[in-house]
Amino acid sequence: MPGNSFGKIFRLTSFGASHDPWIGGVIDGCPAALRLDREAIQVEMDRRRPGGNPLGTARNEADRVELISGVLDGTTLGTPIALLIANKDARPQDYDHLKDTFRPGHADRSWEQKYGVRDHRGGGRSSARETAVRVAAGAIARQLIATAGMRVNAFVTQVGEARLEAAYDTLDLSATWNEPVRCPDAATAKRMTEAIETVRAEGDTVGGIITCVVSGMPPGLGEPVFDKLHADLARAMLGINAAKGFQLGEGFAAAAMRGSAYNDALIADDTGAVTTSTNHSGGIQGGISNGENIVFDVAFRPVSTLMKEQRTVDREGRSVVLEGKGRHDPCVVPRAVPIVEAMTCLVLADHWLRQRTARL
Amino acid sequence: MPGNSFGKIFRLTSFGASHDPWIGGVIDGCPAALRLDREAIQVEMDRRRPGGNPLGTARNEADRVELISGVLDGTTLGTPIALLIANKDARPQDYDHLKDTFRPGHADRSWEQKYGVRDHRGGGRSSARETAVRVAAGAIARQLIATAGMRVNAFVTQVGEARLEAAYDTLDLSATWNEPVRCPDAATAKRMTEAIETVRAEGDTVGGIITCVVSGMPPGLGEPVFDKLHADLARAMLGINAAKGFQLGEGFAAAAMRGSAYNDALIADDTGAVTTSTNHSGGIQGGISNGENIVFDVAFRPVSTLMKEQRTVDREGRSVVLEGKGRHDPCVVPRAVPIVEAMTCLVLADHWLRQRTARL
Amino acid sequence: MPGNSFGKIFRLTSFGASHDPWIGGVIDGCPAALRLDREAIQVEMDRRRPGGNPLGTARNEADRVELISGVLDGTTLGTPIALLIANKDARPQDYDHLKDTFRPGHADRSWEQKYGVRDHRGGGRSSARETAVRVAAGAIARQLIATAGMRVNAFVTQVGEARLEAAYDTLDLSATWNEPVRCPDAATAKRMTEAIETVRAEGDTVGGIITCVVSGMPPGLGEPVFDKLHADLARAMLGINAAKGFQLGEGFAAAAMRGSAYNDALIADDTGAVTTSTNHSGGIQGGISNGENIVFDVAFRPVSTLMKEQRTVDREGRSVVLEGKGRHDPCVVPRAVPIVEAMTCLVLADHWLRQRTARL
Amino acid sequence: MPGNSFGKIFRLTSFGASHDPWIGGVIDGCPAALRLDREAIQVEMDRRRPGGNPLGTARNEADRVELISGVLDGTTLGTPIALLIANKDARPQDYDHLKDTFRPGHADRSWEQKYGVRDHRGGGRSSARETAVRVAAGAIARQLIATAGMRVNAFVTQVGEARLEAAYDTLDLSATWNEPVRCPDAATAKRMTEAIETVRAEGDTVGGIITCVVSGMPPGLGEPVFDKLHADLARAMLGINAAKGFQLGEGFAAAAMRGSAYNDALIADDTGAVTTSTNHSGGIQGGISNGENIVFDVAFRPVSTLMKEQRTVDREGRSVVLEGKGRHDPCVVPRAVPIVEAMTCLVLADHWLRQRTARL
Repeated sequence: MPGNSFGKIFRLTSFGASHDPWIGGVIDGCPAALRLDREAIQVEMDRRRPGGNPLGTARNEADRVELISGVLDGTTLGTPIALLIANKDARPQDYDHLKDTFRPGHADRSWEQKYGVRDHRGGGRSSARETAVRVAAGAIARQLIATAGMRVNAFVTQVGEARLEAAYDTLDLSATWNEPVRCPDAATAKRMTEAIETVRAEGDTVGGIITCVVSGMPPGLGEPVFDKLHADLARAMLGINAAKGFQLGEGFAAAAMRGSAYNDALIADDTGAVTTSTNHSGGIQGGISNGENIVFDVAFRPVSTLMKEQRTVDREGRSVVLEGKGRHDPCVVPRAVPIVEAMTCLVLADHWLRQRTARL
Repeated sequence: MPGNSFGKIFRLTSFGASHDPWIGGVIDGCPAALRLDREAIQVEMDRRRPGGNPLGTARNEADRVELISGVLDGTTLGTPIALLIANKDARPQDYDHLKDTFRPGHADRSWEQKYGVRDHRGGGRSSARETAVRVAAGAIARQLIATAGMRVNAFVTQVGEARLEAAYDTLDLSATWNEPVRCPDAATAKRMTEAIETVRAEGDTVGGIITCVVSGMPPGLGEPVFDKLHADLARAMLGINAAKGFQLGEGFAAAAMRGSAYNDALIADDTGAVTTSTNHSGGIQGGISNGENIVFDVAFRPVSTLMKEQRTVDREGRSVVLEGKGRHDPCVVPRAVPIVEAMTCLVLADHWLRQRTARL
Repeated sequence: MPGNSFGKIFRLTSFGASHDPWIGGVIDGCPAALRLDREAIQVEMDRRRPGGNPLGTARNEADRVELISGVLDGTTLGTPIALLIANKDARPQDYDHLKDTFRPGHADRSWEQKYGVRDHRGGGRSSARETAVRVAAGAIARQLIATAGMRVNAFVTQVGEARLEAAYDTLDLSATWNEPVRCPDAATAKRMTEAIETVRAEGDTVGGIITCVVSGMPPGLGEPVFDKLHADLARAMLGINAAKGFQLGEGFAAAAMRGSAYNDALIADDTGAVTTSTNHSGGIQGGISNGENIVFDVAFRPVSTLMKEQRTVDREGRSVVLEGKGRHDPCVVPRAVPIVEAMTCLVLADHWLRQRTARL
Repeated sequence: MPGNSFGKIFRLTSFGASHDPWIGGVIDGCPAALRLDREAIQVEMDRRRPGGNPLGTARNEADRVELISGVLDGTTLGTPIALLIANKDARPQDYDHLKDTFRPGHADRSWEQKYGVRDHRGGGRSSARETAVRVAAGAIARQLIATAGMRVNAFVTQVGEARLEAAYDTLDLSATWNEPVRCPDAATAKRMTEAIETVRAEGDTVGGIITCVVSGMPPGLGEPVFDKLHADLARAMLGINAAKGFQLGEGFAAAAMRGSAYNDALIADDTGAVTTSTNHSGGIQGGISNGENIVFDVAFRPVSTLMKEQRTVDREGRSVVLEGKGRHDPCVVPRAVPIVEAMTCLVLADHWLRQRTARL
């Protein structure tokens, strides 16, 4: 059953695999009359593109986005926006040895269990190559929600043992893009970079954590019960390759806290404007944004493909030893930062439009 | 826009608020010809019902589930199954003081920001009272997935600082229900109970963590890209009141791990049957179940309502001090265990039916 | 897979069968802050209820609608509105002879082919009893769209050979409810009534046509391509029991027309206000309302249950002769008028809310 | 809100406009392991393509379908199937005079009323050019349902006053494609062709009717209540440009019939196999297929663009006279036959997959 669409009103349908001629997507539900800045879309693509980061894969793709419908003279028409991104630097021959062998930690075997057939070339559609489509669509969503003042900033807060300890509101988040490792604090960025270089040198990989902050939030976004704003954010984040955990505000640390310490007190100023004294709840209460910054973390597992021998099985159920091959990132988090932002933008665009129908 | 339905094929629509005459739900998409054990549904209800746990609220509800359609002579007909649960021990007068005041940490203010109107009686539909419907529906889903061998067990692994350190597969999970705190290890249960009694005595509250294990998993469940099985589980869990975090397998700990330690090696036995040497990935790879046990954790914040004074604001934006009143749990996790199980069952029932259309 | 919900934003989920204790529904997506007139809902119910029309079935139901959630002090809350209608005059024993026999023209056999099981009591959920829920939900939708000026009027234009020849805009549509046969022209109503009395006397039944007019239409409702406004209206109408045809404006007659006669010329008055010279296209162009009246017809087959012997088969595939029994209408159209109106209101409410997201 | 997707399990999302570089679509939910015959897809395209029919427009498009994802070595993978069709013979300059003028009978004005912006080039996305995507997707759906024995045949039964009177089961439906007018009866085809040539010579256009027959139907397809099989067929048909009416079986004629004449008697043969003596109900009862042939008609209005002067208005609300220009069909039905078939195949593929979840 379809699982390749995301969103109820602002809705992305994604297609394409690592070694198809193109990957692409269709956005249905983007309102008419939005002025689109195409270069701003490309800026996002460049932040994610393979070949654009010294810490990442050697695969090199220009990732120029072609908008082939839904936009006329720079303005959206209300019709579906289709986008295409060419796969140019594919090397299917690199994957011949995987046709009948399942890589440990990868989706190779579970996809075969599901469908009985599988595109083994570069992992097929389970490849993170598909996330380029999300970044392009997210860049359009970002321009939509910017009209309502929302700003989305993600950055790396952990790589292996190297953690960013400073609170986000003490940092200049615009510095994130200065560092290939995508941590806005230069000293921490250095430690993270070293951690990645170390595992790369050993043919190994390492995990990490990305934090995302949304400022300029309008209150009232998110639907009660099942479609809580953070529930949809969690689903969006765990739909990213290698993501294994999500927490909002204090998250798992809240388990050890008392209510008297956790509750965000409501404070009114002289004009009757209300804020919260703290933001332990991460800007969402009862599933609905309260106007404070949204803050959440996403945990990523280490990349599955090692440049080392690993024990595994083939399609006939025979034990084999797999050598590491292909072009892969040693750590996914630097290149996942724009993906986290993109998925956040898609969730917010959808909920912002949903909110238009909440009141008479 | 609608947010009160859950699932694409096995689909629950929930309705009702804390102080309505009934709460209830409609399950559309349950296959015909399932034999339903009504007493098994009631067992689940009893595990969650208020008044049924010495560690919980003093509100007392029998929570008898009436199935008013979709079942004839104990067998499902393929038509919608509607269920009703009466609210009998409601005390709306307990909430008069909240008509114009927002409780800190609660959804009072964000709901008002969203809709402009609000049912202040017992929190209205933001009350955890609504989760009784999910438990009833989940009990039906559980009977459906049991026909395919799936078994779902949740239990408390942390309350405040008290943590269960033993691995789940060294425990007798059936012992979970012996302890009001819902931890299968008696010694840990004792420490958790003490933690709850301590905060209760102080008019305070505390958070916790629930772990859930699914055994007997068929491989192949979960849809690639956006509807990954763990993405849908995360959304289901964060749709539960007070849930703030979700992690699969190693989860956040994976951020500090290396790929060579994290990857679950594939091992074949003499017959060609394949398992994994470890289960760091929590039974899901690339969003698709691989047949190993699914293991995940859900973090809960401390309950918002304190039996203490708290600083807050009223609807006119004036600072006020709120006294604690009403009947509330000091810790949500013991009564949330059946809710975590129920939501898990709903996700699995949906994906199990979705998988029927994956192959020619 | 679920088929018991209708609408994308204003969404009705219906449940219950002819001989269940209640039938009912849940409306999710009704905006908050709508003042609801409960008596206006009951007026609609009375127009449809069995026992309320001398031309209809002898089954007698009060059809009082209980709104059990989603409304506080007469105002919608934005939460799901659940409604219940009791089945009081059910006589399951009247249907014992149908447990193992399929009635010709009914859904008995096709439901058994679909599900393998079946509720034979009064046709179970295939009974038109279920449409009472739609009338109740439609009455709420009607109050919503009335805030935007939309008015929906349906009436009977054909029973058997008796046809209403006058154009709708020459009639006083408010007279529709004066006549049990629901035709606003008294002379034609008399002929229609005679046609029904004739077939009833012979133990036979007869078909008919209902026409529906929507005035006060805002332009711009309807979505291009698949969700055209008239496509959704057609689906809504053909989802009504016994409906077999739908046409918009000139409909089937357009097949024999030339474009020069069919096209509705656009005319501007001195102020630049634009109307069409004719309305052959029935108020919808390219699937989108143009502000003119929407006009469509729905054809209904004769009622299947005859008070005559009919040849049929039993579950074992043996030929049997079925005698007519039970309480049935000899012609469905008089009581279907409020159902046509209700489904129209549901479609318009949904598209009116959808339109809120069409433009930046 | 999105309206460019069709189907719940077998789901087509369509994009692109008349003068975009490509039009295309994405099919999500096609099961894995279907062998796809690409040439069979092209056969369908050729039957619809502009330039391929002497009775149609002079626009000439090769309409080669590129499948860019979801298929490997001729077999579906279970992943989204994206398809592209190039627009090569577009002439945007032909439409400059329509930038500020609304054509009568067209969607020009209602789209502008909806979105405030509009692609005037060739009607933008309201152009029937978009239906090429549906034909391509329908050709894939056809191959899927053929595995279950379903065969779909549509043909022209009326053009203006020229009607096919013979019953469909007395005709050789394979002869449909021999005649450019797509009527399987040569004598009637001649009269229809003359009717089209006559109106074309006069710069006028004419309407028509297409009948569609599905044989080899499995029983049990269609969902009760809102998603009845014929309700979804009606929606599919009225989503086709210029379609204005739908009827199943006897359709509107049933309004004048008696139940004793209309009811299809059930007949068992010696083996207990059951058929119906007649098929007035068109193969669907209670919204569910009964295994008999499905038969329905679709009425089409005359084409809006005339090669004549017409009275209309411009965007400023001034009366203007519009001259006929551009390349258009004088009658839509010959080229709409493959579109009716395609939409039928999409509906059946979806319901066939939906039925997989109906029973335990």
